Amino acid sequence: MSSERLIYLPLGGAGEIGMNAYIYGYGKPDQERLILVDLGVTFPDMDGTPGVDLILPDISWLKERADRLEGIFITHAHEDHVGAVAHFYDALGAPIYARAFTANIARRKMGEHGHPEDAVRTVSPWPETVKVGALTVSFLPISHSIPESGALVIDSPAGRVIHSGDFKLDPTPVVGEPFNPELWEEVCKTGVRALICDSTNVFSPNPGRSEIEVGPEIEKLVADASGMVVATTFASNVARLKTLAEAGERAGRSIVLLGRAMRRMIEAAVETGVLADFPKVVSAEDAREIPRENLMLLVTGSQGERRAASAQLARGKYQGLEMKEGDLFLFSSKTIPGNERGVIRIINQFSEMGVDVVDDSSGRYHVSGHANRPDLQRMHTVVKPQMLIPMHGEHRHLREHAKLAEAGGIQSVVSVNGMMLDLTGNAPKVADYIETGRTYLDGSIQVGALDGVVRDRIRMALNGHVTVTVILDEDDEPLGEPWCEIKGLAETGSSTASLVEILEEDLNQFMMRAGAKTLRDDDDLEEALRRIVRQTCQSELGKRPEVTTVISRMR
Amino acid sequence: MSSERLIYLPLGGAGEIGMNAYIYGYGKPDQERLILVDLGVTFPDMDGTPGVDLILPDISWLKERADRLEGIFITHAHEDHVGAVAHFYDALGAPIYARAFTANIARRKMGEHGHPEDAVRTVSPWPETVKVGALTVSFLPISHSIPESGALVIDSPAGRVIHSGDFKLDPTPVVGEPFNPELWEEVCKTGVRALICDSTNVFSPNPGRSEIEVGPEIEKLVADASGMVVATTFASNVARLKTLAEAGERAGRSIVLLGRAMRRMIEAAVETGVLADFPKVVSAEDAREIPRENLMLLVTGSQGERRAASAQLARGKYQGLEMKEGDLFLFSSKTIPGNERGVIRIINQFSEMGVDVVDDSSGRYHVSGHANRPDLQRMHTVVKPQMLIPMHGEHRHLREHAKLAEAGGIQSVVSVNGMMLDLTGNAPKVADYIETGRTYLDGSIQVGALDGVVRDRIRMALNGHVTVTVILDEDDEPLGEPWCEIKGLAETGSSTASLVEILEEDLNQFMMRAGAKTLRDDDDLEEALRRIVRQTCQSELGKRPEVTTVISRMR
Repeated sequence: MSSERLIYLPLGGAGEIGMNAYIYGYGKPDQERLILVDLGVTFPDMDGTPGVDLILPDISWLKERADRLEGIFITHAHEDHVGAVAHFYDALGAPIYARAFTANIARRKMGEHGHPEDAVRTVSPWPETVKVGALTVSFLPISHSIPESGALVIDSPAGRVIHSGDFKLDPTPVVGEPFNPELWEEVCKTGVRALICDSTNVFSPNPGRSEIEVGPEIEKLVADASGMVVATTFASNVARLKTLAEAGERAGRSIVLLGRAMRRMIEAAVETGVLADFPKVVSAEDAREIPRENLMLLVTGSQGERRAASAQLARGKYQGLEMKEGDLFLFSSKTIPGNERGVIRIINQFSEMGVDVVDDSSGRYHVSGHANRPDLQRMHTVVKPQMLIPMHGEHRHLREHAKLAEAGGIQSVVSVNGMMLDLTGNAPKVADYIETGRTYLDGSIQVGALDGVVRDRIRMALNGHVTVTVILDEDDEPLGEPWCEIKGLAETGSSTASLVEILEEDLNQFMMRAGAKTLRDDDDLEEALRRIVRQTCQSELGKRPEVTTVISRMR
Repeated sequence: MSSERLIYLPLGGAGEIGMNAYIYGYGKPDQERLILVDLGVTFPDMDGTPGVDLILPDISWLKERADRLEGIFITHAHEDHVGAVAHFYDALGAPIYARAFTANIARRKMGEHGHPEDAVRTVSPWPETVKVGALTVSFLPISHSIPESGALVIDSPAGRVIHSGDFKLDPTPVVGEPFNPELWEEVCKTGVRALICDSTNVFSPNPGRSEIEVGPEIEKLVADASGMVVATTFASNVARLKTLAEAGERAGRSIVLLGRAMRRMIEAAVETGVLADFPKVVSAEDAREIPRENLMLLVTGSQGERRAASAQLARGKYQGLEMKEGDLFLFSSKTIPGNERGVIRIINQFSEMGVDVVDDSSGRYHVSGHANRPDLQRMHTVVKPQMLIPMHGEHRHLREHAKLAEAGGIQSVVSVNGMMLDLTGNAPKVADYIETGRTYLDGSIQVGALDGVVRDRIRMALNGHVTVTVILDEDDEPLGEPWCEIKGLAETGSSTASLVEILEEDLNQFMMRAGAKTLRDDDDLEEALRRIVRQTCQSELGKRPEVTTVISRMR
């Protein structure tokens, strides 16, 4: 039991898509020196997290062991991999390692939060390594939908582990390094103990297409357009932005970048030398003087986000620019499940303006950044790991990927957030179960997902809210009549009188009849008032609202 | 101006999918005798309508003219066409006409609401007609994903109008009448003034497939399954239920129907003779005694609805039955946009159980009930209308369908809810704009969408809620200190003290300093208290909550 071991523990991203955070460690049990790979966020929605600004992984386990944390490695600059670094810097304090482009983005986040930017250290790709405790880590270039995605080669006394990060096998990614199978084979030929592998597209049956394939299609579309052209994609997809901008330029259009995230990504790509030649852009202000048929806008908001440039253009003007009948709007992106309503809303708003919308339903104007099923199989073959642990996926993706690996003769296990694996033996072994979950950034405060704060908000949204006030005198006798205020409930129910009047009448009758014992006891009285409010609302409205009772005693 | 005219006025379903309600009328302006075609509902969601039970069209315009309403014609028994008949029976009171199966469903709804079932009149299909005012109406059979869908042939002194209802062109629909092009050509050969036409699938480029094509695929899937098989589809898709049940029967499995809606649809189909031969079903209770490899359950909840049988099976037991590793779950349905999250949740829950889930991504186990783009073109050719008015679609669908018609040489116009068209002339002419909108069934009460009730609920969900109570004595001086209660907010913010204590302290300081004029005036005082609460919460939490203030005066 006291021999050293190699552990893997996902705190986020295993059993869900997004909010990635994976721990590796080596050492004696409960004394392992640790590294954290990625520290991302996921996004709230009205269904389950109304009013929440951002969802972060619950890293309590790691916070309590922060003294054992040697470093944080960020595979690439997508928000679900880097978004939480600044939020947890105070709690973890460990140095952050990343390749140049990713480090540039991470430093901007640190700066915005008032943290030292030099906590982020730029690492060159393989063969450069970082030694952290018993582990040695190197960034192995891999193609994805953002520049400089890096798989990690993690060497331990128990052998080599490859953490794929997000990836696709793209020989021609337009920006950044193509997938280099010779380099990967070279790295893996000494034997790989475990491949921890992206599972996002395991259900996509056909081989993935290259980024370069969308270029001619986009070029043709833009060349044929007669009005203004507006295109949206993920702001971080620098290759796509380049393809779009070049298509615009070739069609004789001036390029405008709208949306802060998009400008920031281009800036970072230029600063780090990732992007050498991007067409000249003009400001929104200058664009107003250019005929619309000579303009191409690249805008944020491919997921229908209400505050992004695309949604604002759909509602009217954005920075003095607006769309008109005969213009073209291109979604060079896919809609992430759950965002359909927002995207469809925008499409209909454009339709009302007479704007033609082209989306990805034809498959011509977007390719995925993730490896499809045959590409995953190819990766298994290149790496030839002893075991494969699927990550980056909901349970259904992980299970399918594990089956795929096993069908290829590779040992696999579905490991979800909180399941610690010991990778030291011949097969992955469950070593422990850790409490994990989600932390909400709510305004400026971090709130636990199970604190009940958001649950109460959901209940008010579903049921409405009633405030009841009663005042009692020095002898605990009612002083005046109960008072009600409603919010989120109809003013009149099945009776013709107002709901508030009926509530106050019912509550008053109760107060007149209530025994001294009930009136003396705050808990009893509160419970009784709540019950009456709910009964009355049930009979008047068919709803049982949330109730706040305020009992004031004149003592 | 006083000559008679033929009008068309959508109150729901034009500019949205669902909640269908279309008015036709003939007569002198503002004296037209009216009919209503369909009276459906749409479904609420947490994003925009939290806590709402059902969304109905706002039919205020029609209620005010109920004396001119001759009848309500229901094309088929889907909820978005028939769901609101009972809710509005008191307000409209007109007789309801439908074919037998639809009438059976409508009568059940009337009965549940305590309305007379004989207000629903069964009409045989073409050539039987109903004479209503100056209009003569007949049900023309058309295939769809529910039995006895009927297009309407509406004859007026200004000519013949065809209202397509939901439809597809299926020569082999398994249950119900196939599309009969000869009959349709016969009906249309005298000339059709206007075709009011379903637009749902105008963006689907390939010809629609027949219901009969899914049979062999489902049969193969079920035959190959080794554990229990559970399949879900829309409860009203009686043909699909038959296909599924027969596949189970052929594989030697006993059939169980789970979910009230499913049993009710089968009942109605048998009662009306639509469904002659459905495999024998066993009860859930009896099923518990049958080995799981000999069972096939047909369950409600293809859209991931939380209370339906599928979701309950995904969480655990339903009526004593539960799924296990090695079982198969089939979605013989598509996911309606907006329902993705609920469906994916179920799939992941099944994945955790080791249940294999098969969905429609392969296209093998479901076909749509709506005419695709080439089928719409074929319909245009069969009917040869003078004008085509697209309906059943969001704005983008209507616009696309209008373009398609115009490309085929047919006059068209996009008419959305509230836009009244005069169809009497050579081309459709906008005659008026009517206020339309939505009515919410909230518990047992109908609430206007713009009443602010739901808006307040959304605000509480996004921002949380604070109750402030202050008591003032006979001289309008504070009596004791202000009191706060919070709901849906973190208990502690950026300070270390509790939020409630900080709020009460800030409010008390204000009350001590406040001038007599402010303390005397309820509105001023309320406004000041609200402002302080919001400022304090903004600085403590970064959130500006909803505030209820209660000011009690001891007079």
